[in-house]
Amino acid sequence: MRNRNKPWADDFLKENNHILAEEPFSNKGNWQQSFSKKQPLHLEIGAGKGQFIAGMAEKFPEVNFLGIERVKTVMVGAVKKVKTAEVENVVLVNEDAKDLRDMFGTDEIDHIYLNFSDPWPKKKHHKRRLTHETFLEQYRDVLKSDGRITLKTDNRSLFEYSLSSFSKFGMTLEDVTLDLHELEDESNVMTEYEQKFSAKGQPIYRCEVINRI
Amino acid sequence: MRNRNKPWADDFLKENNHILAEEPFSNKGNWQQSFSKKQPLHLEIGAGKGQFIAGMAEKFPEVNFLGIERVKTVMVGAVKKVKTAEVENVVLVNEDAKDLRDMFGTDEIDHIYLNFSDPWPKKKHHKRRLTHETFLEQYRDVLKSDGRITLKTDNRSLFEYSLSSFSKFGMTLEDVTLDLHELEDESNVMTEYEQKFSAKGQPIYRCEVINRI
Ligand SMILES: C[S@@+](CC[C@H](N)C(=O)[O-])C[C@H]1O[C@@H](n2cnc3c(N)ncnc32)[C@H](O)[C@@H]1O
Ligand SMILES: C[S@@+](CC[C@H](N)C(=O)[O-])C[C@H]1O[C@@H](n2cnc3c(N)ncnc32)[C@H](O)[C@@H]1O
Repeated sequence: MRNRNKPWADDFLKENNHILAEEPFSNKGNWQQSFSKKQPLHLEIGAGKGQFIAGMAEKFPEVNFLGIERVKTVMVGAVKKVKTAEVENVVLVNEDAKDLRDMFGTDEIDHIYLNFSDPWPKKKHHKRRLTHETFLEQYRDVLKSDGRITLKTDNRSLFEYSLSSFSKFGMTLEDVTLDLHELEDESNVMTEYEQKFSAKGQPIYRCEVINRI
Repeated sequence: MRNRNKPWADDFLKENNHILAEEPFSNKGNWQQSFSKKQPLHLEIGAGKGQFIAGMAEKFPEVNFLGIERVKTVMVGAVKKVKTAEVENVVLVNEDAKDLRDMFGTDEIDHIYLNFSDPWPKKKHHKRRLTHETFLEQYRDVLKSDGRITLKTDNRSLFEYSLSSFSKFGMTLEDVTLDLHELEDESNVMTEYEQKFSAKGQPIYRCEVINRI
């Protein structure tokens, strides 16, 4: 449905295959080869239009960033953002993050970002939440032992659920904030959704989780 | 300081020694003998004027409740509340909850309630917070293995701190809510502070923690 034919998007993405990984599953275990330097690998799942990953890449040149986004037309926006930022430490992947273990080797990732993930409010859809235990199982495997997950969201129900999901799964909540923007954390890079919701005065929740202790 | 001589309070508490434990440290390991029935033992630390413990005791006659409150004049209020409620399953203790292991045997407690605990906002006072790891060590020992801790507060900073303190200590966050009163949880019994703050429209935070998995 979502990825129904959009020839203009296909053409645009093909022209930009230096930013977009063409055969992401064949890179499993060897993602460092897609970057110009070998350095820590951070992954954003559901990268949207790329404001966060482009901003992070500028701010942290000593990190390699990978962004996964399943909607092709949204991915076009992310490619544009990365091009404009003129950064060399970003690779994008236009796929559904169904099972990360098909795309990444054990311990290949240092940090995972979940930014304003779809909230799936209905109980019967909770298993689709990116913090459901079936996803945490994947994160545990592809993340290094001391790897981290950072979740940011405006959605209270998703946040409450995620805190106890991480905890029940045996991950450690290193830090929790219920009003990120009050902190004035200089290292924070805003996403599109974050900018929209915080402009409306909504609090932004964030937690930082360690894979294993 | 706080417990400076208040003869009227002393007299009142002495008259009510059927509700107030006179030598609490000598009851260590044998608290069930202070109650008319042997049944699960729930402990509230910082019971204040007793609205919560009296209400809980009425609602849950199948549970024995112990309330610790260090301020004598406040404790007078709690004794009055328990008398008025005419419940037989409450014992109160006028002590500082410094080291619970002096007062309780291993695994003696089923549930601990921390209601609107003093927030101690300054960083250098965080070790006084009732969710600092030195307190969690005590709770771990006196609580049964599958015992629980319920924390309610209006204080955001204390709540954020407590979530990660529980998690880092290896306790499991079974449930987290960032707006308790929106839930309309019929089993919730309000404390004095809860009533005051929620009347002002402030959200009430609650988490439920399991001692060990
Ligand atoms: C609510 S948007 C947030 C976008 C961006 N992270 C932000 O904060 O502005 C969620 C995004 O995640 C993408 N997404 C959700 N589930 C995904 C999955 N399993 N794999 C890849 N992308 C996904 C959606 O297509 C959407 O673009
Ligand atoms: C902010 S009041 C809240 C009272 C009540 N729980 C409520 O929710 O309305 C905190 C209470 O905890 C008591 N308290 C704090 N630390 C304590 C300790 N270490 N031992 C016993 N009582 C304590 C204080 O004296 C005070 O009455």
